[in-house]
Amino acid sequence: MIAEELYDDLQIRWGKLQEYMAQTATGGCLLSADVNLYYMTGKVYNGYLYISQIGEPWFFVKRPEGLEGDGVIYIRKPEDFPSLFAEYGISMPKKILMEADELSHTDYMRLHAAFGRPDVGNATAAMRELRSVKTPWEIEQFRISAEKHALTYSEIPECYQPGMTDLDFQAEIERRMRKNGSMGLFRTFGANMDIHMGSILAGDNAEHPSPFDFALGGAGINDSLPIGANGTELKEGMAVMVDMAGNYTPYITDMTRVYSIGELPDIAYRAHKVALAIQEEIELMAQPGVLCSELYNRALDIAEEEGLGEYFMGTKQQAKFVGHGIGLQINELPILTPRSWEKLKPGMVFALEPKFVIPGVGAVGIENSYLVTETGLEKLTIFEEDIIRLD
Amino acid sequence: MIAEELYDDLQIRWGKLQEYMAQTATGGCLLSADVNLYYMTGKVYNGYLYISQIGEPWFFVKRPEGLEGDGVIYIRKPEDFPSLFAEYGISMPKKILMEADELSHTDYMRLHAAFGRPDVGNATAAMRELRSVKTPWEIEQFRISAEKHALTYSEIPECYQPGMTDLDFQAEIERRMRKNGSMGLFRTFGANMDIHMGSILAGDNAEHPSPFDFALGGAGINDSLPIGANGTELKEGMAVMVDMAGNYTPYITDMTRVYSIGELPDIAYRAHKVALAIQEEIELMAQPGVLCSELYNRALDIAEEEGLGEYFMGTKQQAKFVGHGIGLQINELPILTPRSWEKLKPGMVFALEPKFVIPGVGAVGIENSYLVTETGLEKLTIFEEDIIRLD
Repeated sequence: MIAEELYDDLQIRWGKLQEYMAQTATGGCLLSADVNLYYMTGKVYNGYLYISQIGEPWFFVKRPEGLEGDGVIYIRKPEDFPSLFAEYGISMPKKILMEADELSHTDYMRLHAAFGRPDVGNATAAMRELRSVKTPWEIEQFRISAEKHALTYSEIPECYQPGMTDLDFQAEIERRMRKNGSMGLFRTFGANMDIHMGSILAGDNAEHPSPFDFALGGAGINDSLPIGANGTELKEGMAVMVDMAGNYTPYITDMTRVYSIGELPDIAYRAHKVALAIQEEIELMAQPGVLCSELYNRALDIAEEEGLGEYFMGTKQQAKFVGHGIGLQINELPILTPRSWEKLKPGMVFALEPKFVIPGVGAVGIENSYLVTETGLEKLTIFEEDIIRLD
Repeated sequence: MIAEELYDDLQIRWGKLQEYMAQTATGGCLLSADVNLYYMTGKVYNGYLYISQIGEPWFFVKRPEGLEGDGVIYIRKPEDFPSLFAEYGISMPKKILMEADELSHTDYMRLHAAFGRPDVGNATAAMRELRSVKTPWEIEQFRISAEKHALTYSEIPECYQPGMTDLDFQAEIERRMRKNGSMGLFRTFGANMDIHMGSILAGDNAEHPSPFDFALGGAGINDSLPIGANGTELKEGMAVMVDMAGNYTPYITDMTRVYSIGELPDIAYRAHKVALAIQEEIELMAQPGVLCSELYNRALDIAEEEGLGEYFMGTKQQAKFVGHGIGLQINELPILTPRSWEKLKPGMVFALEPKFVIPGVGAVGIENSYLVTETGLEKLTIFEEDIIRLD
């Protein structure tokens, strides 16, 4: 069931969860969301992972057929848990962690009843917290994603042809992504966080407010997916922001670069420089123990000091964060918001994205992915940071 | 808020839900899943739609900023519902429909508490039932998707070059899809139904069992997304099944065609002909009132009569359905399974996909999307149905 080479790393992850369970007097944890199963097993299957406070996990599998190995138990329906637990000598927990923010209400109630309605803690909150500090194997995956992410961005000028729309441009970039190994699927956490492979924002489409909780908006291709490129023709004087997914492994890097069609007005270059200055300042401030809110507030202060507050993170609608954890999903913990109590820890990986939207021009700014080390930040996404001319 | 041209069609949809509410003595229905909001408003926003048993709906919006029109009410958090209801003169329901299979347990409990814990019916089940019979505007959207779907498939031979892998081939097809207007995002219903834009299965990868409840499997690109193309090199004598999404409008058509590299063994052509014969038989049988289980069982009977039962809908793992409703998501109602009690109704749109997996060759068979009319079926996805040579 579990790949040999992952075993040591998975033991770290199981250990973190079991330590949390010991601290919270929790007997067991039941997981079934794709990202949680993958985190705990290195596989996605249809079924559940159950782990007690002590010992190795059990893999309750519905599909696919044919999985084998220690701890694999096939299950047809949740109601079979008690008899399977009895058969395999697993004790029923008095308190259990369940994925309250990921399971549907129906699935949650059915599972809870199958376990005899024990006390429950929130496995979603626990797993998001645990997953925010990455293991050595996970960090290695980010490094692979980052390298391929930069490779794709280096090919972006080849994707441009005069007269094309933002959607044509995006289609070419998506093809390069897939050729360079992108898995395509772009995983997000939470309801209604719809997106396809990332976002290209050209000109005034960058001002269009979106319903989703991404940094910027865009009208999108139709009213069922109101985000990103909308068919804007790429024209002289336009800034084109490329924020496409770094999903070259299951661990997603996040990286934004700005391209220009010809020359941009001075204010665009000035705002871009301020974004780079914010990035530099945050790089200096960020180290283990620093409050994420301090990082956001410093970024906002610099934007305001430079007289660019009204353009910071949007115009008609402004995002209230300047960075976010990344991992198996694009919106993991921590979040760099005005009132976050989260502190940076070694092993966290997050994206920092100071951006400005300049009416009549488009979006400028920067986004990179960083690993928090014992002493500060290590930038993972290494690539040209100035505005790159496409013509 | 609501596009003028959609108003008449939306009234049909509101009416269907209100009729259901009247029959079930339900005072109100609260929706927030992306597809349900889109179905009821023609828009996706972050927030809720609330509709009473009588009257027009209310649009409770969190994001984006700036929406306007009759019934638009901005809301910050679920706990504000009672005061907003009082302010706008909306009566609190004694029984409410809530999306039990779509809301997370946490969101469900919070909303339920905000409404004072009324009796609850399942809005997910109700909406899936209502959405299974399409309105005139929706049917028009399918027609547009079907036409562009066929256009993309006509370009597939141009995507092939000798020596490429299934993934390279898929990247080229995805680019064509996007150029032809695909929205990219491929919506599914239910937990852990992960997929990216569709599936290409070449050679023995078609036998690989998948955890997901799609018709066939495939190992996929990595263990976090075990479905579809896996890097198989396309070689002489291989069948290549193309089952890419028809998401050219929010309404997804579903269509599969088989391509071959050179000549295939005779059994592949014979199985393909049997799939076409099953399709023809189901086309004759299918009309309003027919049980979906009868259609499945007839398809299985033909496969078995032809001595191909062991290859029908997979080998190592066999799908237990031969068709499914389509719409805003790829897996809507009805489902053509062995024990389904669902009956066809005029206005339903479904995909029929009799397929065989031939070890050593790959997958063959057919999939088309059909509209159920008063008298039978109308095929929406019109395109060459024989196996098409790529070389």
